[in-house]
Amino acid sequence: MQEIRIGFGQINPVVGDFEHNAAQVLKQLSQADGEVDLVVFGELALCGYPLGDLSYRSDIIEKTEQALADLVAESKRFPSLTIVLGHVSSATRRDVKQSAFAIAHNSATVFSNGKVIGRYDKQRLPTYDVFDDWRNFVPGEQDLIFELQGKKIAVAICEDIWDSASPQAQRLKDAGVDLLVVPNGSPYTRAKQSERRFAARSFQKDFAVAYANLCGGQDELVFDGDSFLIDKDGKEVFRAPFAEGMFTKSEEIVEILDDNPEKLFQALVVGLRDYCSKTNQSKVVLGLSGGIDSALSCVIAAEAIGPKNVLGVALPSRFSSSHSIADAKELASQVGCEFREIPIEQPHASFESMLTLSELAKENLQARIRMVTLMGISNTDNRLLLSTGNKSEIAVGYSTIYGDSAGGFAPIKDVFKTDVWWLARWYNESKGKSIIPVSSITKAPSAELRPGQTDQDSLPEYQLLDDVLRLLIEKSATVDEVVGLGFDRTLVAEIDEKVRQAQWKRSQGAIGTKTTQLAFGSGRRVPITTRFGKL
Amino acid sequence: MQEIRIGFGQINPVVGDFEHNAAQVLKQLSQADGEVDLVVFGELALCGYPLGDLSYRSDIIEKTEQALADLVAESKRFPSLTIVLGHVSSATRRDVKQSAFAIAHNSATVFSNGKVIGRYDKQRLPTYDVFDDWRNFVPGEQDLIFELQGKKIAVAICEDIWDSASPQAQRLKDAGVDLLVVPNGSPYTRAKQSERRFAARSFQKDFAVAYANLCGGQDELVFDGDSFLIDKDGKEVFRAPFAEGMFTKSEEIVEILDDNPEKLFQALVVGLRDYCSKTNQSKVVLGLSGGIDSALSCVIAAEAIGPKNVLGVALPSRFSSSHSIADAKELASQVGCEFREIPIEQPHASFESMLTLSELAKENLQARIRMVTLMGISNTDNRLLLSTGNKSEIAVGYSTIYGDSAGGFAPIKDVFKTDVWWLARWYNESKGKSIIPVSSITKAPSAELRPGQTDQDSLPEYQLLDDVLRLLIEKSATVDEVVGLGFDRTLVAEIDEKVRQAQWKRSQGAIGTKTTQLAFGSGRRVPITTRFGKL
Repeated sequence: MQEIRIGFGQINPVVGDFEHNAAQVLKQLSQADGEVDLVVFGELALCGYPLGDLSYRSDIIEKTEQALADLVAESKRFPSLTIVLGHVSSATRRDVKQSAFAIAHNSATVFSNGKVIGRYDKQRLPTYDVFDDWRNFVPGEQDLIFELQGKKIAVAICEDIWDSASPQAQRLKDAGVDLLVVPNGSPYTRAKQSERRFAARSFQKDFAVAYANLCGGQDELVFDGDSFLIDKDGKEVFRAPFAEGMFTKSEEIVEILDDNPEKLFQALVVGLRDYCSKTNQSKVVLGLSGGIDSALSCVIAAEAIGPKNVLGVALPSRFSSSHSIADAKELASQVGCEFREIPIEQPHASFESMLTLSELAKENLQARIRMVTLMGISNTDNRLLLSTGNKSEIAVGYSTIYGDSAGGFAPIKDVFKTDVWWLARWYNESKGKSIIPVSSITKAPSAELRPGQTDQDSLPEYQLLDDVLRLLIEKSATVDEVVGLGFDRTLVAEIDEKVRQAQWKRSQGAIGTKTTQLAFGSGRRVPITTRFGKL
Repeated sequence: MQEIRIGFGQINPVVGDFEHNAAQVLKQLSQADGEVDLVVFGELALCGYPLGDLSYRSDIIEKTEQALADLVAESKRFPSLTIVLGHVSSATRRDVKQSAFAIAHNSATVFSNGKVIGRYDKQRLPTYDVFDDWRNFVPGEQDLIFELQGKKIAVAICEDIWDSASPQAQRLKDAGVDLLVVPNGSPYTRAKQSERRFAARSFQKDFAVAYANLCGGQDELVFDGDSFLIDKDGKEVFRAPFAEGMFTKSEEIVEILDDNPEKLFQALVVGLRDYCSKTNQSKVVLGLSGGIDSALSCVIAAEAIGPKNVLGVALPSRFSSSHSIADAKELASQVGCEFREIPIEQPHASFESMLTLSELAKENLQARIRMVTLMGISNTDNRLLLSTGNKSEIAVGYSTIYGDSAGGFAPIKDVFKTDVWWLARWYNESKGKSIIPVSSITKAPSAELRPGQTDQDSLPEYQLLDDVLRLLIEKSATVDEVVGLGFDRTLVAEIDEKVRQAQWKRSQGAIGTKTTQLAFGSGRRVPITTRFGKL
């Protein structure tokens, strides 16, 4: 494939912002012009992905098709480029057995020098995890093969290639295809780089594969770029970094960073950064408890939108320890963000004089007073409130609804507590100094809602908890299966019950960046009302 | 079809509670014994529906199959009955083009006198609105026809018959089928009774149709019974009411109650009643503002779980009018529920002295102080907090997140404001007295968060707003399409923008009973981050 030079356009589309998206495409085409022959963009790059049920609206399809027609016309400015661009297109409703309301295809159009060469519609529509493609799109029926410089080039889209036994792969081989180009909307998870290469190599049959991905955050998903080219023999000859831009050649292939704290941290930063920028929010506020979750959230926010746009607020109650306030203050100083200290004793006392509360209710009261204070600042200063809960506590409901769970975005909601510590240690190491106070990392976790409280009064040790949660949630393991791996039955059954009981709280939780195979949110759809497995 | 006597078992399953569900099946079989020849239960009656991603767990499938085997054995007690019962069953994963993780069929087993006659697996899997069947189930491939008393009887499940051009219907006709029995999980919406009959009549081809539905609430869905039998000529010869039980004959056919306040009210009552009972909650608390939304929510709660289990709390601020408190008190007295009055001035003043707030933030503050108070009572007394927002305000974001939007269940979240008034008037008429104070119905709606405020300071008249919202939401209409119907473009575009802006709040909203074709919740999946149509 030496002859055809390929450019990978990693663009960061905003759903429904055609002007913005088309401008990015044009800018990257200018960069590619003269450098390469063929440019491949990500899945639905022109309209943004995922669209969800916006794909039911005829106007979004019409506007996409108009934007595409404009770009085809503009492509005369780059006559030597052949372009593959993802977009929605109008479809006649699918056959009735596939009962859904979709009126759009998930397409990619090949065009060059003002002319459309062909359109491909995604054939294999994922309907698992966060994906609703079967709901939102009509599957395509036809392969697309075109010629460029005497080579046969085919197009597939994302899920199409995630099946090693696909008849499509065999058809493309039989047709003598030299190169398969694949626009993708492939979200970051911690093991995804290896999985993508495994999928591409399993699918290829004597043809090279050019895999192009989006780059940027969209609600709970982060697309991490990582476009790559593998030759006919499966050897990777090109890899793009986790960055927006047009990538045409790499000096050397960057390292695979599966399960790597640097890449995980970057995904969390990009997820928050793009949620802010795409929803036109430039400032955030968060409560700083002196603990590790709010500390990590604060450094993520500072990296995402700049420390000057971050306000950390310490909200000590009568139960807060002096080291907590000191740690919060120290963190803000190291990060360089704004800091305020607002003791909550006055409303705390006034609610207590107004109401007779149980011990649990008294604990929740403090978390809710903090929320009221933070939302007052959020509303007054137009600051996005961040919720700083981690995946372990969200899993078992160890949080106060309308209290610490409140916020517009939850940067570490899909990071287990043990990984919060891992990231915090890595962050300090990478900076060569303790931006996050060492005591925030080393002290016993506590909500400090009553004297001497620690998380382990109510929960197993986090290492054990996280091990069990990974199995129950990400592997959909049954209690029996987890017990079979050597865990205590009572412990596992109790954790399973806590996870079920907390579903109503999670159903009202803020979105946050998906980092694992199965994140709470749109990837996990379970009833609130169920007695299955009830103790 | 005179010869075969049919019983419709409208059971109210709890997801995953096999003991409870099997006991209901057995009780209804006892009632049918001797009365009829053939008994049909609803879709997934044995395990509950919808299961969501619980269907991925091998243990729920195994336990369902065990419960089914036990019931088949028990059926020897009723040797003259032939039984059609819905349940999940294990499946080999579907072919790869239909990319999903499902490992279960959505099945119905026919059995009699201890023996299995056959199993049918649902073929047409809906993937629109609230339905995720394509995600959660493997489609069946085979029709099932069995003989009873010399007649040929076929089985289909729910969505299978919602296609008048179905090849399945033709196959059944060609096979000479006399009767089609259809287990359904068909949720209530306001026009559903007519739609069901239209679907059944469009599908039937010279065979009678016995349509059996579930009855009861499951999270946001209410199944409203309404099982029916239509003969070969499409004439309805039997109809079951909106009630649990075994229905074998009707004295006279009950009225179709499409778009009827009585039936809508009943659906709201059942939705809340079953959410409480199935999650083991016996008491509720809600704020009573003196307005119509909280008044209607209060009477729904009183009808659902008994007035003695309902606590209404008036939480006057310095801006509350005296008539508001009087109306709240009057309502509680008429309903016979518990009532408390807790002025919020003290925490209100303490927050104001602690924080400098914008005007909007000051308004939200009051709503959040009320939430903190109500959640304090909720946590202390184990009372489910009800959120009393209506669909109109939820649509345009006219509510305070972590304030009045807070709660475990929102009984009227899918009822437009104009329909709230309609229901309130109907309720008073049906009771022959003004349980809901007339002034709560007739006064101008106001959040009373600043002096002299009314909803129409910020919103169009509700009749106009609701007309536009029905088009934008339930019809997925574009702004152009709504304008084409004669509405003002600026108004429609502003409403469309408000709906989009409020998505982040809705994504954190409480569940509540679906009553319309498209309810906010799992039936409407749109991105939070989008600039499509942005003004």
